[in-house]
Amino acid sequence: MEIKGFSTSAVAAGIRYKDRLDLGLIYSNVPAVTAGVFTTNQVKAAPVIIDQDRLRQGRAQAILVNSGCANACTGVKGMENANITSSLLATRLKIDEKMVLLSSTGVIGEQLNIGAFRSAMGKLVEGLGEDNFDSVARAIMTTDTFPKVVSRVVTIGGQEVKFMGMAKGAGMIMPNMATMLSFVITDAQISFPELHDSLKQATDRTFNRITVDGDTSTNDMVLVMANGTAENAWIDEDNPIDKQLFQDTLEGVLKELALQIVNDGEGASKCITIRVCGARGEAEAEQIARTVANSPLVKTAFFGEDANWGRIFAAMGRAGVRFDPSRVDIAFGDVVIVRDGLAVGPDAEKAATKLLKEKNITVCIDLKDGTDCEEIYTCDFSLDYVKINADYRS
Amino acid sequence: MEIKGFSTSAVAAGIRYKDRLDLGLIYSNVPAVTAGVFTTNQVKAAPVIIDQDRLRQGRAQAILVNSGCANACTGVKGMENANITSSLLATRLKIDEKMVLLSSTGVIGEQLNIGAFRSAMGKLVEGLGEDNFDSVARAIMTTDTFPKVVSRVVTIGGQEVKFMGMAKGAGMIMPNMATMLSFVITDAQISFPELHDSLKQATDRTFNRITVDGDTSTNDMVLVMANGTAENAWIDEDNPIDKQLFQDTLEGVLKELALQIVNDGEGASKCITIRVCGARGEAEAEQIARTVANSPLVKTAFFGEDANWGRIFAAMGRAGVRFDPSRVDIAFGDVVIVRDGLAVGPDAEKAATKLLKEKNITVCIDLKDGTDCEEIYTCDFSLDYVKINADYRS
Repeated sequence: MEIKGFSTSAVAAGIRYKDRLDLGLIYSNVPAVTAGVFTTNQVKAAPVIIDQDRLRQGRAQAILVNSGCANACTGVKGMENANITSSLLATRLKIDEKMVLLSSTGVIGEQLNIGAFRSAMGKLVEGLGEDNFDSVARAIMTTDTFPKVVSRVVTIGGQEVKFMGMAKGAGMIMPNMATMLSFVITDAQISFPELHDSLKQATDRTFNRITVDGDTSTNDMVLVMANGTAENAWIDEDNPIDKQLFQDTLEGVLKELALQIVNDGEGASKCITIRVCGARGEAEAEQIARTVANSPLVKTAFFGEDANWGRIFAAMGRAGVRFDPSRVDIAFGDVVIVRDGLAVGPDAEKAATKLLKEKNITVCIDLKDGTDCEEIYTCDFSLDYVKINADYRS
Repeated sequence: MEIKGFSTSAVAAGIRYKDRLDLGLIYSNVPAVTAGVFTTNQVKAAPVIIDQDRLRQGRAQAILVNSGCANACTGVKGMENANITSSLLATRLKIDEKMVLLSSTGVIGEQLNIGAFRSAMGKLVEGLGEDNFDSVARAIMTTDTFPKVVSRVVTIGGQEVKFMGMAKGAGMIMPNMATMLSFVITDAQISFPELHDSLKQATDRTFNRITVDGDTSTNDMVLVMANGTAENAWIDEDNPIDKQLFQDTLEGVLKELALQIVNDGEGASKCITIRVCGARGEAEAEQIARTVANSPLVKTAFFGEDANWGRIFAAMGRAGVRFDPSRVDIAFGDVVIVRDGLAVGPDAEKAATKLLKEKNITVCIDLKDGTDCEEIYTCDFSLDYVKINADYRS
């Protein structure tokens, strides 16, 4: 798929490794309405600080993204380097430097390899074309094992509106307001407040519901550029129906990308949905689901294909949320293994164990205490998770 | 060492496995002043509920402890079974059933093997002697690789006062008010309020400062029995100096046991102290230290002997505590690797990497924002952690 007015490019700039795509560019030939959400980690990478400042204008034309170096914990020099890269690109593209957004991922605490950016910038801009979206998704990979892209077409305001999204991420994943990196482009004609609001809500229900290891990155961001070339009737405050449709579609794109991240969680062999129902509030349901999803003992049991509901129960109990253990039901898929706080029996456990051999597993926890439900998406904790992370920098 | 008036016994009762010590008894031939602290997990095992009730009287004579079954998430039947075991023991010992405290560790969600208790109780009581303390410490092991015992002698109130402590624990370790299981006996003559207060304070600074995997168990407890046979001047509210000495000694015993637990953390190859200084409050220092200590990415980097301070910085940033990243210093041992938020350089990193080959590692984080310091003790996250926990029930 292509979206009118957008072009993309990716090159192997040699930022950290040789002969590996590591520098990507997403470009809109007109200023696009652009919104972003960013990491809540107090330690913010240079590109995050710069983008938050530039996005006050609600417009952008280019996203320059690199892997191999996070440009985080790099101080004044890191900010200077980031500004040099956006200036290099702005000059080539003949646009205002403030219209360039930056994004980086990779090792924390090292300075950007500016020489590599300088040498590659010409080739990067010359390479702009309509078919490189997947290559950019590949250029932002670090420990990811596959590029993550999604596209959608919907009719909004009488016009066909397109969405293309990409994401990267496999470790240091427990986004809070955003995830590792995700970029979405669309030709929708939408005003900034509606775009920003849609992005925030969609992110809360998608990227903010996944966790691989409970670690929130310093570089998380989701950016959406809407260049308006679909010429649909403007989506603004007077147009709530179109806004809802836009938001639902955006949420669908982000959710699919989020699940791709969990699916590619470092060393993951299982995709697990922890659903908590019957809670007295959404925040309480989410808190319990998140505590279970982050428990190393629960995650290693899934890796071992062990229907170890005792560990789930123990994690629930330390979540800081009041509930009555003697009312709790726990099911793996449609197999109820705990009813009213007690084991159902060996047959149920046998059926649950069989179900654990599948790749996708849903755990349903019913507190029977209220009507609110929430889901958190995660993966198991495998030998490969430890191997990958004991070796990542070496 | 022996303590007058206390005797101990351990047998292989076959509760879960054959021919493995799994049932232990600590007995005082006079009612001992006894205090306990217990798990804050909302899901509490039957023995925890029973002991909390019985300890209102501040006196006990026996602790009956088993491994192989946690008697947690076992409902009304679990409570009935626990009461049967204490009744069996009380009859044999000819003491009031309320003077028996219970403690269990092992798999969650299974009922106690009451038959094994019945058959073994006679032999257990007949075996009471002064030399079995280490055997009891062995009987309470689950995934522990060594028994954990500590002894101390101090002079309090003109008399030699003895302490003997034991603990078990290797996984599901992030105690909150207590740890897995620990029992301390002493011949000190001390009143209940002073004993309880000393235990609470000592636990807060020792067991509540360790974490293996961030999971708080359903069965955690620390019990201290003081039978007064040392005939020291009573330690009570009129005797603050002796109380301080008692408390310091108890804290020393608990700290050594706590560090033994970290040292035996499931699959652990390193013992790591995370010290946070220069904070604006102890709670803030502890919160940052705990977040770093529980980060799977930090723990796998230690396993990989990688001086990956970027992950430490990223974990600090998501701890929910305000600090200025540009003032932070981070040192591994005496090697400062980050100064004022920036990498010191390759020589420092090389020196730090060398230091990481040691078994005991201290990470010092200075926020330069205040005067408060706290420490958390943890271990690394290894391939064996995953292997042990993927296999534990099978």
